[in-house]
Amino acid sequence: MSAGQWGYTKKHMNKEEQLHQIRHSLSHIMAMAVLKKFPSAKLGIGPVIDNGFYYDFILPEKLSDTDLPEIEESMREIIKQNIDFTKSSATRDEALKKAQSKNQNFKEELINDLPADEEITFYASGDFEDLCAGPHIKNSKDIPLDGFKLTHLAGAYWHGDEKREMMTRIYGLAFLNRKDLAVHINMLEQAKLRDHRKLGKDLELFTFSDIVGKGLPLWTAKGAAIRRELERFIVDEEIKRNYQHVYTPDIAKVDLYKKSGHYPYYKDSMYAPIKIDDEEFMLRPMSCPHHFELYLSKPRSYRELPMRIAELAKLYRYEQSGELTGLIRVRSFCLADAHIICADNEQAKQEVKGALDLIEYIANTFGLEFGKDFTYRLSLGNRQDEKKYYKDDQAWDMAENTLKEVLQEIKRDFVAVVDEASFYGPKIDIQMKNVIGKEDTAFTVQYDFVMPERFNLVHTDKNGQEKKGIVIHRSSVGALERVIAFLIEHYSGNFPVWLSPVQVKIISVGETHIDFCHQIANDFKNENIRVEIDESAETVGNKIRKSSHEKVPYVLVIGDKEMGSEDLAVRVRGQKDLLNIDKQKFITKIKTQIKDRDLTL
Amino acid sequence: MSAGQWGYTKKHMNKEEQLHQIRHSLSHIMAMAVLKKFPSAKLGIGPVIDNGFYYDFILPEKLSDTDLPEIEESMREIIKQNIDFTKSSATRDEALKKAQSKNQNFKEELINDLPADEEITFYASGDFEDLCAGPHIKNSKDIPLDGFKLTHLAGAYWHGDEKREMMTRIYGLAFLNRKDLAVHINMLEQAKLRDHRKLGKDLELFTFSDIVGKGLPLWTAKGAAIRRELERFIVDEEIKRNYQHVYTPDIAKVDLYKKSGHYPYYKDSMYAPIKIDDEEFMLRPMSCPHHFELYLSKPRSYRELPMRIAELAKLYRYEQSGELTGLIRVRSFCLADAHIICADNEQAKQEVKGALDLIEYIANTFGLEFGKDFTYRLSLGNRQDEKKYYKDDQAWDMAENTLKEVLQEIKRDFVAVVDEASFYGPKIDIQMKNVIGKEDTAFTVQYDFVMPERFNLVHTDKNGQEKKGIVIHRSSVGALERVIAFLIEHYSGNFPVWLSPVQVKIISVGETHIDFCHQIANDFKNENIRVEIDESAETVGNKIRKSSHEKVPYVLVIGDKEMGSEDLAVRVRGQKDLLNIDKQKFITKIKTQIKDRDLTL
Repeated sequence: MSAGQWGYTKKHMNKEEQLHQIRHSLSHIMAMAVLKKFPSAKLGIGPVIDNGFYYDFILPEKLSDTDLPEIEESMREIIKQNIDFTKSSATRDEALKKAQSKNQNFKEELINDLPADEEITFYASGDFEDLCAGPHIKNSKDIPLDGFKLTHLAGAYWHGDEKREMMTRIYGLAFLNRKDLAVHINMLEQAKLRDHRKLGKDLELFTFSDIVGKGLPLWTAKGAAIRRELERFIVDEEIKRNYQHVYTPDIAKVDLYKKSGHYPYYKDSMYAPIKIDDEEFMLRPMSCPHHFELYLSKPRSYRELPMRIAELAKLYRYEQSGELTGLIRVRSFCLADAHIICADNEQAKQEVKGALDLIEYIANTFGLEFGKDFTYRLSLGNRQDEKKYYKDDQAWDMAENTLKEVLQEIKRDFVAVVDEASFYGPKIDIQMKNVIGKEDTAFTVQYDFVMPERFNLVHTDKNGQEKKGIVIHRSSVGALERVIAFLIEHYSGNFPVWLSPVQVKIISVGETHIDFCHQIANDFKNENIRVEIDESAETVGNKIRKSSHEKVPYVLVIGDKEMGSEDLAVRVRGQKDLLNIDKQKFITKIKTQIKDRDLTL
Repeated sequence: MSAGQWGYTKKHMNKEEQLHQIRHSLSHIMAMAVLKKFPSAKLGIGPVIDNGFYYDFILPEKLSDTDLPEIEESMREIIKQNIDFTKSSATRDEALKKAQSKNQNFKEELINDLPADEEITFYASGDFEDLCAGPHIKNSKDIPLDGFKLTHLAGAYWHGDEKREMMTRIYGLAFLNRKDLAVHINMLEQAKLRDHRKLGKDLELFTFSDIVGKGLPLWTAKGAAIRRELERFIVDEEIKRNYQHVYTPDIAKVDLYKKSGHYPYYKDSMYAPIKIDDEEFMLRPMSCPHHFELYLSKPRSYRELPMRIAELAKLYRYEQSGELTGLIRVRSFCLADAHIICADNEQAKQEVKGALDLIEYIANTFGLEFGKDFTYRLSLGNRQDEKKYYKDDQAWDMAENTLKEVLQEIKRDFVAVVDEASFYGPKIDIQMKNVIGKEDTAFTVQYDFVMPERFNLVHTDKNGQEKKGIVIHRSSVGALERVIAFLIEHYSGNFPVWLSPVQVKIISVGETHIDFCHQIANDFKNENIRVEIDESAETVGNKIRKSSHEKVPYVLVIGDKEMGSEDLAVRVRGQKDLLNIDKQKFITKIKTQIKDRDLTL
């Protein structure tokens, strides 16, 4: 089944192809410039990546970022020479000889690693020639001189293997014109300011400790307030939608994952087992088998189905320490998880619909919109790959069709991608775009026809017969760590009131006003509003500036005037004019904003 | 420092001593009766225990419970012979010879294990003589014939060592008279009905799965509702009291526990480490070091102290599989934990007071009263034991005095017990009595002068100087698993409305009433009241009986009459008369009961 069949569109393909060729050709031209500077440089690989390209080198001396403008200028000189890119084929022996003659041992290795039946091609540009499948631009004059920029250096192991040589990787951005490049650079700068790792530190939301361990965030009270609000929102909403919210253990015997069949597929991303007495236990990488064991704790009737078992499940997956990134890539995370045991395909279809409705409701609550902030991807299996996917063509066909029908019925465009499913069935991925436009799977709804078999998830049907069900796996808001990282960047730290760690900040003008500040603070606290007092000896100006950096929605300055009145002059985040409001009305306003999860102040 | 100094009272000591002697003598008499039946029986030990006694034997044939009346009768025959109990001393050689002459190899082993300087004594009764430190009654006529009863058999390893012989243990109850015995037996029967393992199963609150693992409860939606209510109650109350509620990881590097000094003390109750890359991680047995790392994430000022860092912390401690008991002894539990970093002893004293106030507030909310349901125990260190306790006599004196002063100032009687402290300082234990009167430490407040040293928990004081703090460790409600087990038994499953998994049950009379049931259910649900519909085809009588077994506080039966009216006829748990009430008023009543955490319906 081809992806095209499912509605995959080829919009902008030409422009994209053109850009791809420019980026690829720039990587060759960068290699030419580097060889000009260091004739003994050894070349690794030089692929196209998102927004640009890179090339890996072994260099005779250490480069620094300040060397990049010189290389960039040298590249422009080469481009201006209007050099042709010409393709040629070679036998393996010819190819090896070419590499050997230039002392390029990494290229030799690449040639040796090519499959026996693969055509070996080279691209020449000027006196440079590189092993390359192409395609490239015809002539270097097709490259806009002001559309690219070398950005930074990094170390990278050859083949990503830490036992092999460490190479110098030079990164470049490349676009069709100067404006596109400027827009992208500006976005990167903006994104840097919004980076959840930077904001998380500035706003004191979470921290890491070397002695606790990498990839294991410690949430401060402020970050925990956001997380708790999210948790309660999700749990309460799911219970309203007739989910059964449970708690199951974060460890289980290895046998459980052998029974589920996860073990061979997930072994590499699981931690080593812990021996207790004569048994081996694992930190759980998923909660499905736990929920199935709950289902199996008593005989079930069709009347109980669909049974929606949900949990804020702490999960553990191995990540290489180099891959760990803030809250995005962690070693332990909390997934808003659920497994819905359905009687049949028709019920499964309705449940997938219900899950998507919940996901969209939650996304909309955050202010995220279909089309703009998130899109749908239908991730299909691959009938040919019997190692990666459970073999049952009929079940795959039915499941894939069901998911496609749901997306059509709820009138949502989607792209279908082959070979992206789970081993137990196809899934719908909700792809979220982050602040630099990078797409990532945020939530997922999976159709599973394998687990009911393995766990014997049966119920008694209307006729008193034993019948096997179907399982829908879904996350409503994904991993809390990841969604909070996303929201920090999305809001740029300016959280809506309901998610703000501190909702109201009270600033005392002088020492005589501190008691009154506490009195007012209690009025807010008694209404479950998160309030903080700044009674330090700083100037009022400094204290206001500090609260502004903390991105607190509402700030009150309390001096003599305010002590004599029930009216408040409220500094509203991002607004110039003070809001003059009666205290009771202000409390009601905040409570309503919290209850309605208002996005505006 | 003796316990007496701290107010330990000797009330009832004479009666208790008398009972102790009777029980001890009964264990000898049971051994006499068993030897009469099986002259080749080998004797282990026969100590006094809570409410009775036991004796361990190796017997030539297997006993069953039905053999116990015969042995009991034989014991009465012996008692009626008015046998004297007489004490004698022996040298080690004489003692060994006595044991060898009777072929009692376990007694030989006991004698060999006695310290060199210990006086070896025997007690003779009739032709029976047993190695025994006493004391005993003077004559068997002092034993009330109808005050004891043999209850059950169990297997027990010699010395509790599973590599040694399995012995037959016979248990007996013994009291001063027939009435006391009857009261106790009745209490045991009541307790059996209230046993949280039985009720947990009947009410479907939690379950276990062999393949998930022993001692790892899976909470169903119903049990989870109780747990969630408790969690939110505690978190919200602690935040109101200016605790900072955080989330920290459930695993950490072994190094962290080496730094804290917990490792050598807790090694045996920790699980084996998990290797990740080149580092070793542990499932955390406590959260203190995590909270200290959060404290250390930035420089701290005296203005921030006391800093109360709280967490619902998942902890992992090793328990032998034989020791695992329902929710009481589990391998993973969730502790309502907190660590308060204080500037000095005076602040620490106030914080201990505050922690006790919180504990009593929570206990009172459950309907538990000081004196009746819980008492205070002051657990002191032992200056002589430098291996078990951190050596710093001055710090121990100050800490113990501070805790004592707190208890005196809040006017709470307490018993002081030596050698029950933590390695880092003394503590106040809140001892809770369960339904069979067994006392257990439920909550604890600990004074710690060691961790500030090890973690260098400093702050800048008023004069700009660096100063070390003091830490108070405390749990407000203990482990959630344990407190819920306790509450299940305390309420006998009849939870107050706010903790009831299902608050209102709606029963349909016939099929035509089902839709209306759902309508009413939604009215309750929209007000966050937990409601369940029984629309099964059972008779109304059966459905009412079922809801009564489920101990639901309020039950509504919906038939034709109810469909035509806004008035409800509510069956109130434990009440005979129906409550006639308008629907809106009923909803308001329930909401108020939930908000106020009312104990009555």
